[in-house]
Amino acid sequence: MLAALWSASWADANLSCMPATPLLDELRAALGGTAVLTDPDLLRMHQRDEADLCAAGTPLVVVRPRDTAGVVAVVRAAARHGVPVVPQGARTGLAGAANAVDGAVVLSTSAMDAILEIDPVSRLAVVQPGVVNATLAGAVRREGLYYPPDPGSWESSTIGGNVATNAGGMCCVKYGVTTEYVLGLEVVLATGEVLRTGRRTAKGVAGYDLTRLFVGSEGTLGIITEVTLALRPAPEESLTLVAVFDSTADAGTAVAGIAAQGLSPSLLELLDRTHLEAIEAYQPMGLRTDAEALLLAAADTGPRAAEDLARLEKICEAAGASEVYVATDAVEAAALLQARRLAHPAMEAFAARSYPEGNGGLVIDDVAVPRGALAALLDGVARIAAECDVPIGVVGHAGDGNMHPNIVVDRADPASLERGRRAFDEIMRLGLELGGTCTGEHGVGLLKREWLAREIGPVGVRVHHAIKAALDPDGLFNPGKVL
Amino acid sequence: MLAALWSASWADANLSCMPATPLLDELRAALGGTAVLTDPDLLRMHQRDEADLCAAGTPLVVVRPRDTAGVVAVVRAAARHGVPVVPQGARTGLAGAANAVDGAVVLSTSAMDAILEIDPVSRLAVVQPGVVNATLAGAVRREGLYYPPDPGSWESSTIGGNVATNAGGMCCVKYGVTTEYVLGLEVVLATGEVLRTGRRTAKGVAGYDLTRLFVGSEGTLGIITEVTLALRPAPEESLTLVAVFDSTADAGTAVAGIAAQGLSPSLLELLDRTHLEAIEAYQPMGLRTDAEALLLAAADTGPRAAEDLARLEKICEAAGASEVYVATDAVEAAALLQARRLAHPAMEAFAARSYPEGNGGLVIDDVAVPRGALAALLDGVARIAAECDVPIGVVGHAGDGNMHPNIVVDRADPASLERGRRAFDEIMRLGLELGGTCTGEHGVGLLKREWLAREIGPVGVRVHHAIKAALDPDGLFNPGKVL
Repeated sequence: MLAALWSASWADANLSCMPATPLLDELRAALGGTAVLTDPDLLRMHQRDEADLCAAGTPLVVVRPRDTAGVVAVVRAAARHGVPVVPQGARTGLAGAANAVDGAVVLSTSAMDAILEIDPVSRLAVVQPGVVNATLAGAVRREGLYYPPDPGSWESSTIGGNVATNAGGMCCVKYGVTTEYVLGLEVVLATGEVLRTGRRTAKGVAGYDLTRLFVGSEGTLGIITEVTLALRPAPEESLTLVAVFDSTADAGTAVAGIAAQGLSPSLLELLDRTHLEAIEAYQPMGLRTDAEALLLAAADTGPRAAEDLARLEKICEAAGASEVYVATDAVEAAALLQARRLAHPAMEAFAARSYPEGNGGLVIDDVAVPRGALAALLDGVARIAAECDVPIGVVGHAGDGNMHPNIVVDRADPASLERGRRAFDEIMRLGLELGGTCTGEHGVGLLKREWLAREIGPVGVRVHHAIKAALDPDGLFNPGKVL
Repeated sequence: MLAALWSASWADANLSCMPATPLLDELRAALGGTAVLTDPDLLRMHQRDEADLCAAGTPLVVVRPRDTAGVVAVVRAAARHGVPVVPQGARTGLAGAANAVDGAVVLSTSAMDAILEIDPVSRLAVVQPGVVNATLAGAVRREGLYYPPDPGSWESSTIGGNVATNAGGMCCVKYGVTTEYVLGLEVVLATGEVLRTGRRTAKGVAGYDLTRLFVGSEGTLGIITEVTLALRPAPEESLTLVAVFDSTADAGTAVAGIAAQGLSPSLLELLDRTHLEAIEAYQPMGLRTDAEALLLAAADTGPRAAEDLARLEKICEAAGASEVYVATDAVEAAALLQARRLAHPAMEAFAARSYPEGNGGLVIDDVAVPRGALAALLDGVARIAAECDVPIGVVGHAGDGNMHPNIVVDRADPASLERGRRAFDEIMRLGLELGGTCTGEHGVGLLKREWLAREIGPVGVRVHHAIKAALDPDGLFNPGKVL
């Protein structure tokens, strides 16, 4: 099913010097020449996000408007010329949702990077879409506030991209994903009109929830030009533990036990042996590479944190942990978190080592199941790896039932690619069979379109098309994504 | 602006015995005769929700299907005959969203009242829409779980109605409103197709967020036939305090201080003197009727609750509270909560006493502003009450900035109605000027359509119509509501 996508995926089209066109002239007139990029190297740089093995075209131009009026001008010009618009943030996405299509206008929001307001009493921030997640998180922290969503890419990804993909992260097990924090949006529609959705209030039910319709729509319905975000009070310092398991299924059992006993850890992550080994090879951290799985948990419940951590420890031991280790200070806790954050680059490096000369590919998958089905998911992925004869490492947000089975393939070997593709499909199938979803936080983009259709069924697909047609009848925005 | 609505609103059309029609025959064949009600008294009973002064028509028939297949049969039959369908839960709404229109099929979900599943590990429940909020809350509490949304009507309102209106309540200041708990829906569309939205997982970003598009859409986009709800672990016992203020604005200042200091009370309610007096007259509770405002606050932070309550006490005193009283036990705390819960019936009784012979009308308004603007809202409402010369009591969810200014009018006196209408409009205008929304939790229904249009502007209105047209092109569902 995905064969066409996979086979065409890393053959970038040849880039050549683009001639001036009336559209380019209009864009330059509207934005100024420095915001309109046609240098082939820059076009190449803006072809794709971080999803491996997804098709990407060559844009006509990359534009970097500085404000909403600039975005309106770009959208209106592109619409006049019937040229599609592909919005991009920091291109850290993992589903190809930001990949260019041939001849498109890539609209980068990276120059719209102002924090417009932080209000500690109403606990909200108003930002342009190009603000980097870590920049915002730091700015609100200095006001005693907290913006929880922390995708793996948080040090480089933008709020606009986070909102467009409804990004998750490690804090989400307790604090929820991006959409829980989006109070309101400013969006440029395909007509060039500027729509304001939502509110600045804690509660509000005025009309349809357009805000959350745009959150996670991956740039297919409009261009986000401003975001109003709810903030929380800064959390307490957290205490952290590591539990070592000789079986991934036991780790899954521990996660189910933690949920069943009503605990709400502020972090509950799982790394399997493949990832532990990859991280140690990438940057030695003293991780137990003889373990089959490692659970990383934290509690930020203030005076109760030590008690909660003791309960977590007991549950892990009852589930069969061979060792449970409590971090003795914040430095040690930060090091454990850092190890978890290295999982993605470490696996990329592992794939590169496995198949040299740039042939090592990594398909970073993303599947979520109900918490009670986590052990079955982990068992199933191990079985699929064996049956399909491909290396698959598993890492992820165990407390949410949201795992990333990461598949290593040899791009130069069609048989390896075919085995990888089969494993990918089998994991998706397993996730749905377990009552799960084909994407917990990375989105649909190009990678999961077929599986989205399976998950939501023909009625769901029809309603998606009806909404897309209602908002973007000519298919101007990010064509080929999601649907 | 609202004059036509207000003047026509309590003149119920004459009811007469309805003749059998082909539509009624089809409905009886599909559902069985006992689920198809045409008795004039029953039709009259199903004309309206609890919103005063909103127009209501006379339905052709009230149907009470028992399952999704029954709902599909009703929708298909109504669509074939071009007869609108108005869904109803327990008719406790406060904006007229459930009011019948002449000749419509009223589809009551009250017979679809099964709790289908409670899963403590995945922390979710699956219910039919007719399950009463309190019934679900009790059932999950017995499993050590918690379903937070607690609208004032929670002992009689249904989950289907709560979802359709995105109901709020007192717990929301800490735990959020209904939409935060809706993981997925089953919805019957205007085509008669059955759409499943969302998921059973903690996280999920597969496709557009159709779930939250239907939440709060007040039955205008589809009929909700099943709801998958996220649950939380049961909270700790809470500690409660009451703070008495000689000025409502001081109480507002206290609320802003509580937010600014990063506290997250599990309850933060305000009652003004009008409500205190109304409650004491309705059911003597020993409330301080000489106070201008009373703040009711609770903390459920376990071992930290006493400390948090002490901080709340200090903030209230600094803001000028004349007395702060901490409930000494759970019984006393429950009594305070009960006093707050009586605010609505007590004000209804106050209105009835003010203008006897059934002429006392109460417009229960609903406005939300950013927390920092609460004091300005309270000041403004007092000014509007004086200027318009109508009694207005204010009660509500101060911690969310979501207040209910309740306007007492004499239905028999056009001048009183006109003054009430003017006060209503002035409050809406003030709320928007303060950066707020025309409805924090009661919804748009019939009561706020003009103000919704002002709040979201012409682009917002156009997008609403486009989405309505995409999902319900013939205007089958709940015509005249929201838009």
